Amino acid sequence: MSQRVNDEVVAKAMGEIRSGPSSGRHGDTLPHGYKVGVTPKQTLFREIKHSFLETFFPDKPFDKFKNQAGSRKFILGLQYLFPIFEWGRDYNLQKFRGDFVSGLTIASLCIPQDIAYAKLASLEPQYALYTSFVAPLVYAFMGSSRDIAIGPVAVVSLLLGTMLSNEISDYKSHEYLRLAFTATFFAGITQMALGVLRLGFLIDFLSHAAIVGFMAGAAITIALQQLKGLLGIQKFTRKTDIISVMRSVFESAHHGWNWQTIVIGLAFLVFILVTKYIAKKNKKLFWVAAISPMISVIVSTFFVYITRADKKGVAIVKHVKKGVNPSSASEIYFSGKYLGAGIRIGVVSGMVALTEAVAIGRTFAAMKDYSLDGNKEMVAMGAMNIVGSLASCYVATGSFSRSAVNYMAGCKTAVSNIVMSMVLLLTLLVITPLFKYTPNAVLASIIIAAVLGLVNIDAVILLWKIDKFDFVACMGAFFGVIFKSVEIGLLIAVAISFAKILLQVTRPRTAVLGKLPGTTIYRNIQQYPKATQINGILIVRVDSAIYFSNSNYIKERILRWLTDEEAQRTTTIEYLIVEMSPVTDIDTSGIHAFEELYQSLQKREVQLILANPGPVVMEKLHASNLTNLIGEDKIFLTVGDAVSIFGPKGEGVV
Amino acid sequence: MSQRVNDEVVAKAMGEIRSGPSSGRHGDTLPHGYKVGVTPKQTLFREIKHSFLETFFPDKPFDKFKNQAGSRKFILGLQYLFPIFEWGRDYNLQKFRGDFVSGLTIASLCIPQDIAYAKLASLEPQYALYTSFVAPLVYAFMGSSRDIAIGPVAVVSLLLGTMLSNEISDYKSHEYLRLAFTATFFAGITQMALGVLRLGFLIDFLSHAAIVGFMAGAAITIALQQLKGLLGIQKFTRKTDIISVMRSVFESAHHGWNWQTIVIGLAFLVFILVTKYIAKKNKKLFWVAAISPMISVIVSTFFVYITRADKKGVAIVKHVKKGVNPSSASEIYFSGKYLGAGIRIGVVSGMVALTEAVAIGRTFAAMKDYSLDGNKEMVAMGAMNIVGSLASCYVATGSFSRSAVNYMAGCKTAVSNIVMSMVLLLTLLVITPLFKYTPNAVLASIIIAAVLGLVNIDAVILLWKIDKFDFVACMGAFFGVIFKSVEIGLLIAVAISFAKILLQVTRPRTAVLGKLPGTTIYRNIQQYPKATQINGILIVRVDSAIYFSNSNYIKERILRWLTDEEAQRTTTIEYLIVEMSPVTDIDTSGIHAFEELYQSLQKREVQLILANPGPVVMEKLHASNLTNLIGEDKIFLTVGDAVSIFGPKGEGVV
Repeated sequence: MSQRVNDEVVAKAMGEIRSGPSSGRHGDTLPHGYKVGVTPKQTLFREIKHSFLETFFPDKPFDKFKNQAGSRKFILGLQYLFPIFEWGRDYNLQKFRGDFVSGLTIASLCIPQDIAYAKLASLEPQYALYTSFVAPLVYAFMGSSRDIAIGPVAVVSLLLGTMLSNEISDYKSHEYLRLAFTATFFAGITQMALGVLRLGFLIDFLSHAAIVGFMAGAAITIALQQLKGLLGIQKFTRKTDIISVMRSVFESAHHGWNWQTIVIGLAFLVFILVTKYIAKKNKKLFWVAAISPMISVIVSTFFVYITRADKKGVAIVKHVKKGVNPSSASEIYFSGKYLGAGIRIGVVSGMVALTEAVAIGRTFAAMKDYSLDGNKEMVAMGAMNIVGSLASCYVATGSFSRSAVNYMAGCKTAVSNIVMSMVLLLTLLVITPLFKYTPNAVLASIIIAAVLGLVNIDAVILLWKIDKFDFVACMGAFFGVIFKSVEIGLLIAVAISFAKILLQVTRPRTAVLGKLPGTTIYRNIQQYPKATQINGILIVRVDSAIYFSNSNYIKERILRWLTDEEAQRTTTIEYLIVEMSPVTDIDTSGIHAFEELYQSLQKREVQLILANPGPVVMEKLHASNLTNLIGEDKIFLTVGDAVSIFGPKGEGVV
Repeated sequence: MSQRVNDEVVAKAMGEIRSGPSSGRHGDTLPHGYKVGVTPKQTLFREIKHSFLETFFPDKPFDKFKNQAGSRKFILGLQYLFPIFEWGRDYNLQKFRGDFVSGLTIASLCIPQDIAYAKLASLEPQYALYTSFVAPLVYAFMGSSRDIAIGPVAVVSLLLGTMLSNEISDYKSHEYLRLAFTATFFAGITQMALGVLRLGFLIDFLSHAAIVGFMAGAAITIALQQLKGLLGIQKFTRKTDIISVMRSVFESAHHGWNWQTIVIGLAFLVFILVTKYIAKKNKKLFWVAAISPMISVIVSTFFVYITRADKKGVAIVKHVKKGVNPSSASEIYFSGKYLGAGIRIGVVSGMVALTEAVAIGRTFAAMKDYSLDGNKEMVAMGAMNIVGSLASCYVATGSFSRSAVNYMAGCKTAVSNIVMSMVLLLTLLVITPLFKYTPNAVLASIIIAAVLGLVNIDAVILLWKIDKFDFVACMGAFFGVIFKSVEIGLLIAVAISFAKILLQVTRPRTAVLGKLPGTTIYRNIQQYPKATQINGILIVRVDSAIYFSNSNYIKERILRWLTDEEAQRTTTIEYLIVEMSPVTDIDTSGIHAFEELYQSLQKREVQLILANPGPVVMEKLHASNLTNLIGEDKIFLTVGDAVSIFGPKGEGVV
């Protein structure tokens, strides 16, 4: 039984409401003669079309297709889907020089990271190398970011590994691998669907604060996992929470640690961190940090090969399969008991991968001032992962560390991704067997050094300074990840993000306004202590659109302001001015709340006056006949106008 | 990888941002000398306390406890929990006269409705009578509404019946009854928990529009169900969707209809509808409609008893158990396989019941101008249903039709509920066996007449006129209920309500402002066609708080306004003024969006200027150092001030 039902039936019965405009000092003229405007009513079709376009096509992707011939439209369409045909025409040798150098640089960073990240997903190293060969190639044709470096990344690898292991605990089984391809396929489908259906804005619902916390938690979880490789521990927990991991580490302290491994691991960890520090201090030396993982791999592999340290208990990679990607099209589960799990894991990892890629893409686009179509990007990412899943790849996305290196190495276009991809092809064809003696400890060092950058303490401090609620969201996601699991952390991040939205729309702010002496400007009396209230008038500003979720709160809050002010003032309040400037929209519940407010005020003998309702609000006030109830002469362009009519002559401040 | 991460690392590396305030025409004086105020910073504790109180205690229930002695506090607390101890002290004979008459009136309406509604829940009639005896009694002590009439209602009965039947299809089994008590118990627990945890605002998330549609759909579903009783059909579908029901009706048309039943049913349906029409035309005759169901029951029962029409196929009630409520405390499932179902059904029906009760309570409170504490009401409802579940009652709530009658009959306090409860007690003790020969057809007529009032076509037309999105929500819920089931309709209603909230926070409005000639007032140029733009300046107003869910959209929308305007104007745009009045809050994502906006504008050689940021926004701009980036001299009290400094001298309109 809705409020409306009762309102209508009973109140109409009583003849209590809709009694027409009540008397006011009608006929007084305003200082400047303007009244509140009403937008010419649009047709229903135009109205719906406009909100549909604004919701799903805010970037107006079709504008450029207008007034074009058929063949031209086809070419434009092709260029839209494959931006390489657009920017490729202006491509020149100078750009290629930048792309070539940056492509080589990110390839040298990518190869050791790939081998390490594959371990996070509990996959064999070659699958990450496959991913770094195919995915960037597809992206280079379809993507529109010029700076992003595509490939496997730490957090998505860990998330994928955790979720896959929950379904199939034996990660060496063929089913595990098949499920990984299935998840990758559906990650691609998810991403493409979000893009095609123009639902890209959904990823905006994962708030920045929650992501900061989630990333930091994932980074620490990943780093802790590396203690296995770094300390040479044989028996290690499969859980990822900090308590299980630390227990594993200390239980094996007496007999399970291998000092040779620790020496190698720590030595190269220090080396890589020092190069990172150098790069941070001197921007021109960024390449030192970029190639240090590769150098570490080469030196340590050579060292182990010479000394045969692997016979003394130093764990090595052992086997990386040579050759290019085999097809995996027949490996994907399209039916059977693992289909559901594959879809679920795919949706989650696809969304997380997107969040990461879009954030990176936007950041660099803003820095170079080119625009990025979020939905188009998602289609590219989706295509890349679908193709990847058919060619033995797992979920790829934009890598933070490699994209930054790419940018600093002077990449100009997505060609740097093609260069990287070609280097990976060469690696797969020729070099992979050489990684046999690469010690796991060095891979662990590379991962630790890479993920430390994800712990952004500055950002957390900023969250604390700017917005305490954001800080709580950040901490929630962080502790969820490190004390429970990446999935739980993600869930907490999403839940807190939504709670914030709900809170925002349920409890909007309201403020009492006062007049800045000597002006006709009315401002929040808490922000401007000099602002003074007017005798007999209370001015309240509502700072939000009025919808069903907050209409009742707003009505009651306004009445509470009135009660509070009446208790404080010596004179009676005759007029309540509601400043509507920030009220950009109102729905039927909001209209009813105003009707109820009007009724309550009538009982208290207070006149309701509205100042500056916007076009949408005015239209709805008219449509609902509320303007007649309140009285057209009670609606003003500004608070100043209303006060000039109803206020005491002379400045009657409280 | 969050935007922030990249921003910080890469951008700091490049030395591109945070380059300090850029030059402006600093030192010019404003017409009135006011600058944007910064609220004195509150301590963290005060800040958190304030938002906590505003979220959970917007009605300030503790204010009256302040500065009171211990014993006084105890009495106040008792009065808070049991408002009857507060208003009871002023109770007098005159009030009792009103309550007595209205109590008798609603009792006469309640008894036939109860017997009918019990059928909707597939329970025996006495359980509804039990409910109308115990629940109003508990509510009278704990509730604060003076007009609400408590008891079983049609929609909740139907919802409960549908959900219970999904679990246990044999509605005559003892398990079915036990599950009903279990659901009632957990409905009470849910309601009380919402009240105690101050989460009452959650029910505001079911939008008015969705409720209108849901109620209308439920009413039609209920009315269609009555065709069984009205037409005397023996074999009838258990499904509630319109297609199954109509098929049932027509398949039994040839042999399954009973003409005696139809005559009785239609005769009394016409009688009840005529009395309703009379009451609607002449408000003083409201009691005619109120007692017509009771008269119908008495006359038809007597008629059947005399003619023994039940032997000619007229279905009758047959058996109503005599005596007061037996205890059902031992019947509730606290473990076992039905516990989960009981909790689920309880939560859903408890929430729906609350929505109904709170809407009714608020409506009447607004009409008599007394205030109602929503959370307190929920505690009362919860207590009433918990007690009820222990005394063989099922879910009770406020009834729309009986509350309206209660109001019109002149009730003064909840004592009218006590009077009704006493009448029910007498009925249970003495009269119930007399209902044996009451024909089901008359009960069907009573239900149809009662639920027709829930179809509110005026409200639907109003929804269409005011807000098309609300109309869609309403229709979605409506068709969901009639073509599928009440549960699906409810689900659609909730989903659409949430979608609306998400849309609202993702795609806020923005507007380009122009100056009203001869004033310093800047308004939306679409609403005020006379408003003119200023040469070299673009003024954009953002109409929403800037949060992670919309920050990126707002940034890109502002840049699109700029691009569009640059294409239209002949002169270059040098200044972009963002009118921030409606921006009541900003979070870290919003701050980053402004940083990115600033960077993009720098690239385009456009200066970013802010007008009238509110207190919260100013505080966060300061905390994040964004004021230094943009420049303190770029932040103005009004758009007019900014234009007076940066605009062309003289009125350089476009």
